[in-house]
Amino acid sequence: MTAVLCVGVAVYDEIFALPAFPTRPTKIFASDFASAAGGPATNAAITIARQGGDAALWARIGNDMQGDRIVADLQRSKVDVSRVRRVEEARSGISAVGVTGDGERMLLVFADPNLDTDASWLPLDDIAAFDAVLADVRWPVASRAVLARARALGKPTVLDADLTSDPAALGALVPMASHVVFSEPALVQFAGEAGSVEERLRRVHDGGAHELVGVTMGDQGAFWVDGSGFHHEPAVSIRAVDTLAAGDVFHGAFALAVARGLPARDAMRFANVVAAVKCTRWGGGSTIPTAEEVDAFLARPPAALSPTKDFV
Amino acid sequence: MTAVLCVGVAVYDEIFALPAFPTRPTKIFASDFASAAGGPATNAAITIARQGGDAALWARIGNDMQGDRIVADLQRSKVDVSRVRRVEEARSGISAVGVTGDGERMLLVFADPNLDTDASWLPLDDIAAFDAVLADVRWPVASRAVLARARALGKPTVLDADLTSDPAALGALVPMASHVVFSEPALVQFAGEAGSVEERLRRVHDGGAHELVGVTMGDQGAFWVDGSGFHHEPAVSIRAVDTLAAGDVFHGAFALAVARGLPARDAMRFANVVAAVKCTRWGGGSTIPTAEEVDAFLARPPAALSPTKDFV
Repeated sequence: MTAVLCVGVAVYDEIFALPAFPTRPTKIFASDFASAAGGPATNAAITIARQGGDAALWARIGNDMQGDRIVADLQRSKVDVSRVRRVEEARSGISAVGVTGDGERMLLVFADPNLDTDASWLPLDDIAAFDAVLADVRWPVASRAVLARARALGKPTVLDADLTSDPAALGALVPMASHVVFSEPALVQFAGEAGSVEERLRRVHDGGAHELVGVTMGDQGAFWVDGSGFHHEPAVSIRAVDTLAAGDVFHGAFALAVARGLPARDAMRFANVVAAVKCTRWGGGSTIPTAEEVDAFLARPPAALSPTKDFV
Repeated sequence: MTAVLCVGVAVYDEIFALPAFPTRPTKIFASDFASAAGGPATNAAITIARQGGDAALWARIGNDMQGDRIVADLQRSKVDVSRVRRVEEARSGISAVGVTGDGERMLLVFADPNLDTDASWLPLDDIAAFDAVLADVRWPVASRAVLARARALGKPTVLDADLTSDPAALGALVPMASHVVFSEPALVQFAGEAGSVEERLRRVHDGGAHELVGVTMGDQGAFWVDGSGFHHEPAVSIRAVDTLAAGDVFHGAFALAVARGLPARDAMRFANVVAAVKCTRWGGGSTIPTAEEVDAFLARPPAALSPTKDFV
C-alpha cells in the first residue's frame, strides 16, 4: 500500500454555522456545530488514510482534552499516531471557526507558546519507508528536517504552501520541496504581485529545483507549471456547503496521488474531486470523504461533472 | 451548612483573549485561552460552593466530551451533580467567547435543539432540603417548576433575570421569584424604556409579590427596590481583566447571602465583592474565587475599597 508521511500541525477545530458574521462584539447563535481534529497536515493525513493510503502524522499536541480528541479522530481514520508527541504543560492548538453559507470564515485561533517546537526527536531514518512526504508550514523546524531528509532519499516531497504568521517560514520551505502547491495569497506573498498567475508560478518553478509548482484557487480550480508548461484543472462543479479543510484535503489527496506515481494532471484531478466532495458536506475535517464516497460522487451522471480544460 | 439549589443551563465555555474584535471574516490570533464549565446557573453553583455553601445544580448536558468537562469542573468545585442529566444523542451547549481588555465580548453560541427541555424528571420534593433556590432563564420549563414549588414551600427564590432569545421566558419567570435581579438590558426589556432605573425597578416591584427587585449595572454597581425603598450599592473599585461570568458570580453570591439570611444591603455588598474579585482574574468561570481568596482581597488597605452610598 502506498505510504505517505505528513508532518506539521495538529489542532482541534470547532465549527459554528452562523447566519452572518458579527461586525461588532455581540452574541451570535449558531444553527449547527461540529468539532474535529484539524490543521493542514492532520487533515491531509486523514484524507490519505480515508482514500486508501497508509498515512502517518508527525506532530505535537498538548496534554489536554483537545489533544485526546485529536488522537481519537486520527485513530478512527487509521492514521498512525505513534509519532504524535504530547507535550506536558502545553495546550493543544485550538480554532473556533465561524462559517456562513458563502464559504467565508472567521477564525479565533490559539497556539500555545509552550508547545515546544523542538523536532530533534523525529525519527528521520523512518522516512525511507514512505513513498512520499507532505509538509505544512505550521511547524517549520520539523518540515525543514523532514523535507531535507526526504529529498536526500529521492522521495517526492509535497509542500502545502500557505500563509503563516511567519513569512520567513514559507520562504525557507518552498525551495526544499519537489512539489509546491500554494494557496492564492501565499503565492502572492512568495512570488510577488507582479504579473499573472502563470508568471508567478513560472518565477517560482524556474527559480528552484521543482518538479511542479501549483496554486489552488477555490472554484477556479488548480493551476500549475511543470516541465511541460502551464496547466489548468478546473474545479469540480458542486454546491459548496462548507469549505473548511478543503485546501488541506486537496493537498492530502494530491500527495497520495503523487506517491502513487500518477501524472500531474491526474493527481490534480483526483485532488480536485476529493476536495469537492468534502465541500458538499458540513463539518470541516469531520467529513473528509472516504474512497467509497468519492466513487459514489463520481458515479453521478457525467453531465454533472465540469469539463477539464488545458491552457498549455 | 447553607444549601442552595441552582437550576438552569450548563454549557462549556471557551475563552479567547483577543487583541481586537474582528470586523470582517478573517483569522485572529489569541494571546491566551481558557476553557471551563459555564452558563448562569452553573457559574452560580460553583460560586456558592467555592464560597462555602452547599450547592446543587439541576441541569442537562449532552453525552459528549464537553459534557464530561462540565461535570468534572462542577465536581472539582464540590457542586452536587447527581441531577445533571446527560441527554443521549444530544450535544452540550458550547460558547466560543472572544474577550478584549476593555471587557467587551463576542460570543459564538451553539445550543443543540436535541437537548430535551423536559423537566418532569426533576425531584421537586427535594427542594424542601434547601435554604434558597436560584434559577436562570435558559431552561424556563425547569425554572418555572422549581420556582413554583420553592415559593409554595416559603423558600427565598432568586431569579437571574437576563435576556434570552425568548422574551416570553423572562416574562413568565419574573413574577415567580421573591428576589429578581436583572441585567441592565433585561430590565429595559421587561419594564420598558420609560423613566429612570429607579422607576423601572419600582414598576416591577410594585407590580408583583417581590421582596426585592434589583439590577446589576457593571462598574456602576447594583440598584434595588425593596420594602424600605430604592437603594444603591456601588461596585468595588478594581482593574477588570475579564468580566466573563461576573454577572453569574454576582447572582450566585447574592443567592448564598440571601439563603444565609443576610439583609439586602449586606447581600448586595457580598455579591459585589465576589464578582469584583472574579473580574480581577483571567479565565471566565475557571477563576471563580474561593472564600479565602475573597478574604485576602478584603484584607487590602481599606482605602482601596470604594465607599457605599445609599439613595434612600
